[in-house]
Amino acid sequence: MYSVSSPSEASRPFLTWQRILDWSQEHYRCRVFSKDEKIPARPGLLYLVQKGSVRLVGSAQVSATGNSRLPRISPEEAFLGFVGAGQPFEIVAQSPFTLQSYAHVDQTSVVWMYWHDLDNWPHFRREVLDAFRYQHQRKLLWLSTLGQRRTIDRLLGFLTLLIEEFGEPCENGYFLPWSLTHAQIGSAIGSTRVTVTRLMGKLRQKGLIYTQGDNLLCLPAESIAHR
Amino acid sequence: MYSVSSPSEASRPFLTWQRILDWSQEHYRCRVFSKDEKIPARPGLLYLVQKGSVRLVGSAQVSATGNSRLPRISPEEAFLGFVGAGQPFEIVAQSPFTLQSYAHVDQTSVVWMYWHDLDNWPHFRREVLDAFRYQHQRKLLWLSTLGQRRTIDRLLGFLTLLIEEFGEPCENGYFLPWSLTHAQIGSAIGSTRVTVTRLMGKLRQKGLIYTQGDNLLCLPAESIAHR
Repeated sequence: MYSVSSPSEASRPFLTWQRILDWSQEHYRCRVFSKDEKIPARPGLLYLVQKGSVRLVGSAQVSATGNSRLPRISPEEAFLGFVGAGQPFEIVAQSPFTLQSYAHVDQTSVVWMYWHDLDNWPHFRREVLDAFRYQHQRKLLWLSTLGQRRTIDRLLGFLTLLIEEFGEPCENGYFLPWSLTHAQIGSAIGSTRVTVTRLMGKLRQKGLIYTQGDNLLCLPAESIAHR
Repeated sequence: MYSVSSPSEASRPFLTWQRILDWSQEHYRCRVFSKDEKIPARPGLLYLVQKGSVRLVGSAQVSATGNSRLPRISPEEAFLGFVGAGQPFEIVAQSPFTLQSYAHVDQTSVVWMYWHDLDNWPHFRREVLDAFRYQHQRKLLWLSTLGQRRTIDRLLGFLTLLIEEFGEPCENGYFLPWSLTHAQIGSAIGSTRVTVTRLMGKLRQKGLIYTQGDNLLCLPAESIAHR
């Protein structure tokens, strides 16, 4: 449906990707992270997920209650999405907001480079920019669902978008291949762990979601747009 | 702070931009819209705002309560942001979500083209892609603030980001040069018109926002990151 070229590994000229991996090994620009390890990413650099999955997290220091007597225990962290294998990401820092990246699964491998390193691979640069364009489109859809007033609608919209993008087929639909805690889900949709747990129960009762295997989230096939 | 090249008109080679405008006139690919007029944009095409401001709106048909007896009056529309002069935009359609674009002010002028039209202007294509990359970064910050649990924090974060990006200097800070209704603000932060009106009053009392002239929103200079 998108006119953006699919950034999946299948469609990427294997030679370029292999050359970039070789280059990153040679220049020590590749590192493997374990689950939930923080990736020390800096603004201005470009990162590519070679394997595994990266979790982007944002924190906002904006608080309308900053001058109250209650100390804020910690800034609120919001789950901003996954970056899957073959996809680029970058970190923005714009006070009062900061972005951070974590390996979401074990053995997540990340390659980094300066933008000018891409001068060697102009076609690859365009692929990277197209991938960001695609990610931007997904975030617009994400914002569409977060504008919904009812938390349960935001929750279902959020899960639908996530599984639509990253889901893998299973017997009755598609499942998200990585776990996500109720606290993480709550942080994405402006709600709390407790509320998410309660609403997930409701969605399950209505047959709109189910879980399989090691507590992985699934959606019935009919809720997922043709991919 | 960003490494993205600024897409402002000042930094754009004047000749390219002028050539594109000439081309769009020649090919009848330019149209002027009046305030709140819908721009009949289609997925797969590229749109450039030449003058004025475009409002992006998303609607989600995802509803966890779809099988209730209560008819939904209309799908909820969420305000997804502005696209200012010199900036590109595109429309994504991915069931169950749809995006729409409206002229936000009178005399908004929009140019459109196919992506392959950009083959004539490879440097301009890169500028367009860099602009989308910048817009993606802004949306990640926007998602960071929407993850905040308290509606008043989301509201203040949302206004801060908007005025940071589009604000113009005034006596005591920066003001948003376009009006935005409380219903539109509510639709962006997952709240209602009534709640936004109440919380805007609170923010005004605390001196965190103020209005000037024709009910335009302002933030004190110290709340805006150095631009």
